[in-house]
Amino acid sequence: MMIDGILREYKLKIDSRLDIIFPITGQPYDTVSEASRYSLLEGGKRIRPILLLEFYKLCGGNDDCAYNFACALEMIHTYSLIHDDLPCMDNDDMRRGKPSCHIAYGESMALLAGDNLLTEAFKICAKTQSIPAERVNKAIAYLASAAGTTGMIGGQVIDTSVKIDNEQLLFTMYSLKTCALIRAAAVCGVILAGGDDKKISLAESYAENLGIAFQIIDDLLDSEGEASIIGKPTGSDSKNDKVTSVTLLGRERALSMASDMTNGAIEILDQFGGDVEVLKELTKLLLKRDR
Amino acid sequence: MMIDGILREYKLKIDSRLDIIFPITGQPYDTVSEASRYSLLEGGKRIRPILLLEFYKLCGGNDDCAYNFACALEMIHTYSLIHDDLPCMDNDDMRRGKPSCHIAYGESMALLAGDNLLTEAFKICAKTQSIPAERVNKAIAYLASAAGTTGMIGGQVIDTSVKIDNEQLLFTMYSLKTCALIRAAAVCGVILAGGDDKKISLAESYAENLGIAFQIIDDLLDSEGEASIIGKPTGSDSKNDKVTSVTLLGRERALSMASDMTNGAIEILDQFGGDVEVLKELTKLLLKRDR
Repeated sequence: MMIDGILREYKLKIDSRLDIIFPITGQPYDTVSEASRYSLLEGGKRIRPILLLEFYKLCGGNDDCAYNFACALEMIHTYSLIHDDLPCMDNDDMRRGKPSCHIAYGESMALLAGDNLLTEAFKICAKTQSIPAERVNKAIAYLASAAGTTGMIGGQVIDTSVKIDNEQLLFTMYSLKTCALIRAAAVCGVILAGGDDKKISLAESYAENLGIAFQIIDDLLDSEGEASIIGKPTGSDSKNDKVTSVTLLGRERALSMASDMTNGAIEILDQFGGDVEVLKELTKLLLKRDR
Repeated sequence: MMIDGILREYKLKIDSRLDIIFPITGQPYDTVSEASRYSLLEGGKRIRPILLLEFYKLCGGNDDCAYNFACALEMIHTYSLIHDDLPCMDNDDMRRGKPSCHIAYGESMALLAGDNLLTEAFKICAKTQSIPAERVNKAIAYLASAAGTTGMIGGQVIDTSVKIDNEQLLFTMYSLKTCALIRAAAVCGVILAGGDDKKISLAESYAENLGIAFQIIDDLLDSEGEASIIGKPTGSDSKNDKVTSVTLLGRERALSMASDMTNGAIEILDQFGGDVEVLKELTKLLLKRDR
């Protein structure tokens, strides 16, 4: 199986859907659509949308129906990046290989573009047709929960305001900040396809493993990578004196943990009893990525 | 009818619901719940939630079912105030009679509290039970649309980035920035109660009139009010050289327009053919308010 080709095809299809969500219509507020498009389109591997679509198919869905949710995940991910990059947060000037949204459009427009992406994400979820409305509701609630206080935002709060001095707190933060939205991707796929509680629980465990592995690889790349490869200044964690899995565990233990988590994720996939080849390949690929 | 008593009772009930949405649970991310509570509770007239509940009842609903949406409206309104007050936006230090969220909790926490309120708003909407899921989805889509690019955010973009030099553009901005969320309140009430398209359209017209009247009164109060009455520094519009209905139309024409819009709103209510007394009294009260 050519996983690269499959992922490329997915990205093309997702990007073509994302491309029509913020049209430029000659309105006086077009700038916020431009700023939203600037951060949303081109860059990005579309991992969360692909996870959602794959879990949706795995549980019996026809993926065409779930693209609204897939796009919404990418929009929520992108809003979080725009707000994270703002001067009052991480103050990062580069993102996905180009100037951050606030560098390109100014701080107030970047703030509004983030708000805009988050708001419009829930709109397209709610506009999902051809999936029973009860499932759509349940998936919206799950997604919002994963993005909110007890999910991504909670993780961001710990990251920016709490002194992290032990592994437990660090991995709590990772579980919220990084895993929650990945978990929402997998679980919303299951929910929308009508999968049962056992499958929801398996999807949660898979995503938790994948998310931790993903974050550790990010930490490793940040500590050693080339800026031109990962698309943002490297060493930004150490610049900010941030505690990461690398500073807390050391490179070797961190890498071994990422590998264990990846294997754990792959083992969980086998329990679904369907065609999980694409998900397996994707999971392995994320461990080996260089950006 | 004692409208003050009715509104007070509504506010108590709404506030008691809002009070349980962000519990302090001893988590390391509690600060964002505290910051969200700080801006959400106590202050505020709860006009949008009350409008939603009244329209819901007017179209045959039992208001207990619609409190999640009512609270969500107040949360979205509050998020917009927190983000508007940030230094990169209006840079306002006071709100609802106390220091703005970013003064009390710092800029990054205020940013996250706003994101948090917006996200959790959609969560509680989607968790609405005892209203058919199709209606809930339709109302979420309407609400998000009113809060997004073609609504509140679009209006905010015009307000912060476009030079307003004519009445048409000013009232387009008001229609988006102020009316859209008021319109969502009225219309979501109708949608959730299963009201037909004619009622949705009437609710939209009512809210458009009310919203414009409301904004003009705001402009008038800002140009003349006492800081201690309206709870934020007055004259902030003129400080920022902002064009408002008062600077563009003059006080007399602005006041007369607010009065016309209020009367227009009241006439539309009569077309509903139900008990609209509370809505009428509320509408009149907003014209006469001094804060």
